[in-house]
Amino acid sequence: MTSAYAEQLDPVYGELVQITTLVGSAMNRATQSLLDADLAMAEAVIDADAQIDTLTSDVEDRCFDIIALQHPDGEALRVVIGALRIAASLERMGDLAEHVAKQARMRYPRISVPLELRATFAEMGGLAEAIVSKTGSVIATKDVALAADIARHDVEIDRLHRELFTIVLMPSWSHGVEAAIDVTLLSRYYERYADHAVSVTRRVVTIVTGEPYVGVSLN
Amino acid sequence: MTSAYAEQLDPVYGELVQITTLVGSAMNRATQSLLDADLAMAEAVIDADAQIDTLTSDVEDRCFDIIALQHPDGEALRVVIGALRIAASLERMGDLAEHVAKQARMRYPRISVPLELRATFAEMGGLAEAIVSKTGSVIATKDVALAADIARHDVEIDRLHRELFTIVLMPSWSHGVEAAIDVTLLSRYYERYADHAVSVTRRVVTIVTGEPYVGVSLN
Repeated sequence: MTSAYAEQLDPVYGELVQITTLVGSAMNRATQSLLDADLAMAEAVIDADAQIDTLTSDVEDRCFDIIALQHPDGEALRVVIGALRIAASLERMGDLAEHVAKQARMRYPRISVPLELRATFAEMGGLAEAIVSKTGSVIATKDVALAADIARHDVEIDRLHRELFTIVLMPSWSHGVEAAIDVTLLSRYYERYADHAVSVTRRVVTIVTGEPYVGVSLN
Repeated sequence: MTSAYAEQLDPVYGELVQITTLVGSAMNRATQSLLDADLAMAEAVIDADAQIDTLTSDVEDRCFDIIALQHPDGEALRVVIGALRIAASLERMGDLAEHVAKQARMRYPRISVPLELRATFAEMGGLAEAIVSKTGSVIATKDVALAADIARHDVEIDRLHRELFTIVLMPSWSHGVEAAIDVTLLSRYYERYADHAVSVTRRVVTIVTGEPYVGVSLN
């Protein structure tokens, strides 16, 4: 890759790292708004999603300019197309954080999550934070060793997702149908969020190694 | 766009139309497997998803080759990038049909959907079929007038989605928590499927008009 070319692309990947920070902060604050029934925080997350959408559009525009003006091919093209797809995944992660915040807002002033499941959602929120922060590091440093960590966090979120399913279906579930549905949808938002982070990591690994990354299984 | 270039791109859009047919058939058969608790049909849908994934990968490879070898810019680049994104949406629609089929398989030999909601899911399946078939026509003919129809079907699916939410939360709901969750998740799969079809239509409209299409609202 020529150095003039790399100079153009570095800001794009820099912007992607910045978006992971916003997307991480969005999910973090969405989790807090959910667990505390904090309406103002939920509204802030919902409002801030527009900024994530603007930044991902900006990355897309830069990529199109690079393709149109620089005619990259081979590895260079893979890097630009990779950036486009990473931007799409990050935008979707922002949407999922917004979904969590909307759920918090919808049930306000009630708390959407029964007391005994607070810890599980706090754990999911913590795992989501770890995943997205490591995803940012993978993009920034191209250090693909972190991919294994990210895959492990994803497995853990999947386990919690299944566990929540089991809990809401137990005869002892006393919170009714609405709470069961809320828990199921919320849990799915975290699970999809983690899947997208894994997918971003796979893109980076493919860019760095030139080979599709099969170490992380997505379904 | 040069004619040699258009010759290369026509097969790509032809392949996208072919994929809409597969994705439509997948959702159609998934709905049938759901309403009839037809295990063999559910398995067939699940197995067939690999073919959709292979075809979308094939479209991506062709687009990369075109970008790398032909150096498109301006309108031509927009058309190639559009094809990449349409492929990604169609692949996801295939996944959502597979999710419906997996739900049918999971509850087999029981039927996942209570008797009184069969008609609603049959209607959602019918709308999904109409949407994907018109999406295929939009790609094939670039006739963006169909976009209004597609948006109308999407509004109708959203209405059914909300209606199902209301029904599972009524005091008269007698099927328990598991069935309520099944209905909610299934309903969400159809709603997301329709959203992706709308998103494909928006891409085509953008390609044809050169302007972002704001007539269809996605959230």
